[in-house]
Amino acid sequence: MLAFTVKNHRLAAVRKPLPRLRPGWALIKLRLAGICNTDVEILRGYHNFRGTPGHEFVGEVIALGKTSPREKSRWLGRRVVGEINIACAALGFRSLCAFCRRGLKTHCSRRKVLGILHHDGAFAEYFSLPLENLYLVPKNVTDEQAVFTEPLAAACQILAQVPAARHHNIAVLGDGKLAQLIARVLRTAARNVTLFGKHESKLALARLAKIKTQLLHGDASDIHRIQETFSLVVEATGSPTGLSLAQHITEPRGTLVLKSTFHGAAPVETWPTVVKELTLIGSRCGPFGKALALLRSHRVDPTPLISRTFPLAEAPAAIAHAQKSGVMKVLLKTD
Amino acid sequence: MLAFTVKNHRLAAVRKPLPRLRPGWALIKLRLAGICNTDVEILRGYHNFRGTPGHEFVGEVIALGKTSPREKSRWLGRRVVGEINIACAALGFRSLCAFCRRGLKTHCSRRKVLGILHHDGAFAEYFSLPLENLYLVPKNVTDEQAVFTEPLAAACQILAQVPAARHHNIAVLGDGKLAQLIARVLRTAARNVTLFGKHESKLALARLAKIKTQLLHGDASDIHRIQETFSLVVEATGSPTGLSLAQHITEPRGTLVLKSTFHGAAPVETWPTVVKELTLIGSRCGPFGKALALLRSHRVDPTPLISRTFPLAEAPAAIAHAQKSGVMKVLLKTD
Repeated sequence: MLAFTVKNHRLAAVRKPLPRLRPGWALIKLRLAGICNTDVEILRGYHNFRGTPGHEFVGEVIALGKTSPREKSRWLGRRVVGEINIACAALGFRSLCAFCRRGLKTHCSRRKVLGILHHDGAFAEYFSLPLENLYLVPKNVTDEQAVFTEPLAAACQILAQVPAARHHNIAVLGDGKLAQLIARVLRTAARNVTLFGKHESKLALARLAKIKTQLLHGDASDIHRIQETFSLVVEATGSPTGLSLAQHITEPRGTLVLKSTFHGAAPVETWPTVVKELTLIGSRCGPFGKALALLRSHRVDPTPLISRTFPLAEAPAAIAHAQKSGVMKVLLKTD
Repeated sequence: MLAFTVKNHRLAAVRKPLPRLRPGWALIKLRLAGICNTDVEILRGYHNFRGTPGHEFVGEVIALGKTSPREKSRWLGRRVVGEINIACAALGFRSLCAFCRRGLKTHCSRRKVLGILHHDGAFAEYFSLPLENLYLVPKNVTDEQAVFTEPLAAACQILAQVPAARHHNIAVLGDGKLAQLIARVLRTAARNVTLFGKHESKLALARLAKIKTQLLHGDASDIHRIQETFSLVVEATGSPTGLSLAQHITEPRGTLVLKSTFHGAAPVETWPTVVKELTLIGSRCGPFGKALALLRSHRVDPTPLISRTFPLAEAPAAIAHAQKSGVMKVLLKTD
């Protein structure tokens, strides 16, 4: 099969055998994969991952490891999306780690992560995941919508961590792909959501989804540009410098959700968090069920965020395109 | 009266008139003042404060602005300690700010802060505070104990923000004055508290209070030195580099309390907070009533932390002494 791996900070095409399936695992044929900033970070060295990247996908189950006839009829030939953290039980450990015992599979201390950590991902014709990670895609959800389930679930995680509906004034810092999804998800729970970003064309996309916007310059002057303060701020700029501005615009005793993962450090003064007694909440993977429900009900439509779709075979050109200014979601498609 | 002000990054003695008293305010004669790291930061330029520093004190009320006979008999001649944030009502504003309306006087948007922000502090023979900020010192609490009320209250704030008793394994990073008080306060609520610091002599002080200790080297190797993880970590090193180590030793979904304020920034990688979904809580001033209760009941005795007491007139020498390696709390005393 065709797959892509990280080599010298680029994606390189390789021929690989099909993955072998453990009991309870599925072989998935890719339909659509999404390129995420984490994939770009992985090329830059994040997690030192050397396998096949790709963790946003919609695919079709085409084979199963040892399992019951009931599971077979449930999954074979069906369209699926999948959670990316592979935890103790699926890895064959009989004694679960402390986090799996608490039901926190996304924090499993032995976890592998699809396309990010010790498990080959979705930039390939075929890849494998445990059945326990999979979700059937509802019929009225298109492939182009379903491929957003993983990042949309990450956005929904904020709703699981913070009572967004109680916040009268919410800010999202960043106008990239994840920030846009976050603003749309928060908008389902709260009326007053403002997206702050540096790109007028991206802000225009957000306004179509009834999100307020404000243009930033991306320099120190932004601190004076934002006069308001917010009881809930989500930092999703993908840049280490976003935290300073985020602290500045969060009101005393307010909540600041950190959503950006990136490789590298920036000088940060943390005294505003102490003086204002802010609560900073790190937020990562989220509930797929909630994300699929938002897609099924059309309360969130992510498809305006799609910039371009490439054939899987052109993955290196696609990831280069994804890094161009103004480009939003880039997809990889198989026949 | 004699007072000290900040001049060219040093304390300079000046002669000043007595402060004028608004209605509901008290004139306080200093008995003992404590030197805090914030005072040292103020000399370095923190908050750009140019008045009289000093916010840890025990004093005696010797005069009152316009008030009722009942208040006069309650306060005149009594030993007091005082909260340092002076809020809307005490400043004479009839219409309260949004934070005062919510009862969050420590976050009053117009606040002045004793010895830190727009209000002269306790490194002086006399200073003023609103009666609403004052607390009577119980008879069985000595001046040497009472002078710790303000930093002890700041330590108690953590108990108000985090259910410490539910945490089975608590770490305090830092072995300085505030870290030591924090560890003692947490120890009243939880059995398993470990203090991490660079100074064996300071760790020995903590062990006398039944706190576990571990010696750090203060370099990058410390990350490998601490094998355990903790569900609750308090960062109280007073150094911008403490946050990296603190994130490292906090377990997934754990809580990290930020207690250090300092002037300056350090490069910090924030991805561990996102990946582990940590909750970071900024923590500043705290409840004086709780701190006085701990002193009165002898559940916390801060006096072993006193390194040396200087006459008020020798404040410049005292603050120089306070910055020497190994020195803990330095006090200023009046006759």
